[in-house]
Amino acid sequence: MTSPRTRPPAWHPGTFDARWQALQRRMHDARLDALIVSNLANLRYLTGHAPIIGVAPTRPWYAVLPADGAPVVVVPQLGQGDMEREGAFGSLRSWSSPRPDTNEGVDEVGAVLANLRRRHGRIGAELGRETRIGTTWDDMTAIRDASGTEMVDASDLLWAERASKSDAELARIAAAAAATQDTFDCLPVIVAAAETERDVHRAVLRTLIESDAGAVPYLAIGSGPGGYDSLTRGATNRSLAQGDVLGVDIGTTIDGYWSDFDRNLAIGHPDELAQAAHRAAQTALDHALATVRPGISACDVWQAMAAVLPADGSGIGRLGHGVGLDYTEPPSLHLDDATPLRTGMVLAIEPSFTFETASGRRAVMVCEELIVVGDDGSRLLSRRADVALPVVSR
Amino acid sequence: MTSPRTRPPAWHPGTFDARWQALQRRMHDARLDALIVSNLANLRYLTGHAPIIGVAPTRPWYAVLPADGAPVVVVPQLGQGDMEREGAFGSLRSWSSPRPDTNEGVDEVGAVLANLRRRHGRIGAELGRETRIGTTWDDMTAIRDASGTEMVDASDLLWAERASKSDAELARIAAAAAATQDTFDCLPVIVAAAETERDVHRAVLRTLIESDAGAVPYLAIGSGPGGYDSLTRGATNRSLAQGDVLGVDIGTTIDGYWSDFDRNLAIGHPDELAQAAHRAAQTALDHALATVRPGISACDVWQAMAAVLPADGSGIGRLGHGVGLDYTEPPSLHLDDATPLRTGMVLAIEPSFTFETASGRRAVMVCEELIVVGDDGSRLLSRRADVALPVVSR
Repeated sequence: MTSPRTRPPAWHPGTFDARWQALQRRMHDARLDALIVSNLANLRYLTGHAPIIGVAPTRPWYAVLPADGAPVVVVPQLGQGDMEREGAFGSLRSWSSPRPDTNEGVDEVGAVLANLRRRHGRIGAELGRETRIGTTWDDMTAIRDASGTEMVDASDLLWAERASKSDAELARIAAAAAATQDTFDCLPVIVAAAETERDVHRAVLRTLIESDAGAVPYLAIGSGPGGYDSLTRGATNRSLAQGDVLGVDIGTTIDGYWSDFDRNLAIGHPDELAQAAHRAAQTALDHALATVRPGISACDVWQAMAAVLPADGSGIGRLGHGVGLDYTEPPSLHLDDATPLRTGMVLAIEPSFTFETASGRRAVMVCEELIVVGDDGSRLLSRRADVALPVVSR
Repeated sequence: MTSPRTRPPAWHPGTFDARWQALQRRMHDARLDALIVSNLANLRYLTGHAPIIGVAPTRPWYAVLPADGAPVVVVPQLGQGDMEREGAFGSLRSWSSPRPDTNEGVDEVGAVLANLRRRHGRIGAELGRETRIGTTWDDMTAIRDASGTEMVDASDLLWAERASKSDAELARIAAAAAATQDTFDCLPVIVAAAETERDVHRAVLRTLIESDAGAVPYLAIGSGPGGYDSLTRGATNRSLAQGDVLGVDIGTTIDGYWSDFDRNLAIGHPDELAQAAHRAAQTALDHALATVRPGISACDVWQAMAAVLPADGSGIGRLGHGVGLDYTEPPSLHLDDATPLRTGMVLAIEPSFTFETASGRRAVMVCEELIVVGDDGSRLLSRRADVALPVVSR
C-alpha cells in the first residue's frame, strides 16, 4: 500500500523568513509594532504548522510577529511538541491548557507584547474582512486592554500577502486539485452504481482517499429532476432517478492548502433546459478564462461572465473567489470588488444562476474551475469540463 | 450499496421550541433581552441546521433569540434554501453575500435587534469560555455599537443548556461512537497490513466510511518505539516497526454531534514499560468510571484518576472533557473545574501521562473512552478497551 502520487516537497529553507519580512514591510507601512494572529490559517501561514486539534474550541494558538525578527508562538503545552517539530518560529511560550480558573494564554501573550519595542503604539490583529479570531472575544479583549496599545485591523495586510501563492504553495493546491480531478474522472462510474446521494458521497470519499487527496472538509451534493436546487448542502438519502441533474462540489486540503471545483452530470437523457444551462455556464467560464491576467480587476472577470449569463431576475452575485489556506479568500469575483489580479493568485471561477426546469421548479446551475493567474493569463489546475453536460446511462 | 446502520431518527417536533424556552428561562434570570449567536455549533443547537459551507470564512450565519418566541435567523441568500428546508426558526432575513463594499449581515442583524422589546438593555453573545464568534471582530463590534445596548457574555448560559444531552442527541453521539468502535475493531487488521502511519490513516478513513461514521474532522495518529510522543497530530510517512506503540484518536460527527475516543496497540512484543503505562491508564479509567454519577464534580473525577496515575513531574492537566456539538466542551475533568455532573452529560474520559521508554525517550500514553452520565453512574458509548495493551504480530 503505497501513496499513488508524490507529496509536495517540504518547504524551502527561508520560506518563512521571507514571509515574515514581507509582512514586516507592510507592517512598517501600516505603522504596526506587531501583528498578532490566532486564526489557524494565519498561524499556518506564519509558521508552517496548524494543530489538527484546533477543531476543538477549548485551546487557542497564538503567534506574535514583531516589527523585526522571528515570531513568538504562544501555544498550549499539549501542542508544544508538534509546533517545535513542524513549525518555524523564533521562540515559544506555552501554558498548561486548559486553565479554566483564569484565561487561555492571555497572560503569556501579554508578556510577549510587553517586551516589544514600542514605536507606533499600534498592534495589528485579525479584525476585518473574511477573518475569524481563533480565541474567545473576552480573551482577545483582555489581550488588547493589557497591551496598552491600540489594536487595529490587519486583515487587509494579511490577505494582500497571502494572495499570491509561491511555487511551493501552488504545488500543494495543484496536488489537491489533481486528486480531486482523478476522483471526478470516476464520477460517471460512481453515479452509475449509486442509488442515493449518500451512496455518491461515500464512493466519492473512498475515491478521494485512493487518490491521496488529503483532508476532505467540504463535499456538497445536489440532485433533482432537471436540476438541483442547492449545491451547498451535504448528501441526503434522496434516490437518484432518470432525468436527474447531479452536482458535486469538493473541497480538499493538502498541508492546509485547498482545492475547490465542482462537476455536473445528468442521469439518462438530460432535459434540454439543463443542457442549455450547463452550456451557458461553460460559455461564461470561457469568457472568464480569456479575461484573467495580471492587472485585470476581479470585477472585470465578473463582468465578463455576467455579460453572458442568463438573466434570472434575482441579480448576479459572486461568481468566484480566491483559494488558498482558506476555502474562500479575497478577492471576490464580484461587481463590487476592484482588486487587481496578480500573478500567483489562485481563483475558483464559479458562474452560477437559477433557471426553470421543464417541470417548473427553480434549479441552480453551478460550474466551477480552479485556476492560477499566470504572467500570460489563466492556467487551469482543474481539467476543463466539457461544454456539454455529461450523461450517465443506467 | 445500502447504509449498514440506521441513521438516528429526525428531531421530535417540539425539540427546538423546548430548547428556545429553556434558554429563555436562563436569559430571563440573566436579564437578557436577546441572545445572538454566530458560532455554527450554537446555530445548529438553536435551529437544527448548520451550513457545511460554514468552513469558509467569507459569510457569517446569525440567529437572534428574543426573550420570548422563536429565533430570527439572518443568513446569506446562498444558504437561505438550506436553512428553510432543514432549520427550525421563527422568521428569516437574508442578504446577497458577499457584500465586499459594506458588511456581512450587520445591517440585517441590526434591524432585528432594533425591533426587539427592550427591558434590560442587555444582549447576550458568545464572548467567553471555550467559544468562538462566527463572524469578524469588526462586524460583531458594529452589531454591538448599533444595538445601543450592552453586549454581555452568554457562553455560560449556552454551555449550561447544551451540557445535558437529550435522548435524540445521545442517539447521534452513540451512532458516531458505534461506527468509530466498529473501525477500531478492525485496527489490528489495518495495522498488520500497513507500512506507514499514513497507510493506517487511509485504511481507518476507508473503514469509517464503510461504518457510516459521518464526517471525520479529527484523526490523530502517533507511533514510536515503545511509545508515541504525540497523539495530537496527523499521520506522517513514518514506517511502522516491531516494538512500536501506536495510538489512534478519532473524532467523527453525525448531524454535528461528535464522538471522541482513542485506542492503542503494540506491534510485535510490547515493551514492559509501555504495557505498564497502558495498564496504569486503564486503572485510572476504571476509577473514573466508578466515580462518575450525577452530583459529583468534574474535579472529583479528575482526582479519582490523578490519585492513581504515575507522577511524571510535569503536573497533571486535564484528563477529559465534555463532548457534544463541539469536539471539546465544558466541563473539563481538571483540578480547577468544580462543575457538578448532570444526567445526560457526555464525557470523554482521557487519562494521559508521559513516561520514559526503554530507550530513554519521553513518550505519552493516552487512553480514552466516551461515556454518558446516567442516573446511576456512567454508561459507556465506546466499548471498554482491554486492560492489556493489544498486540499485533506481523
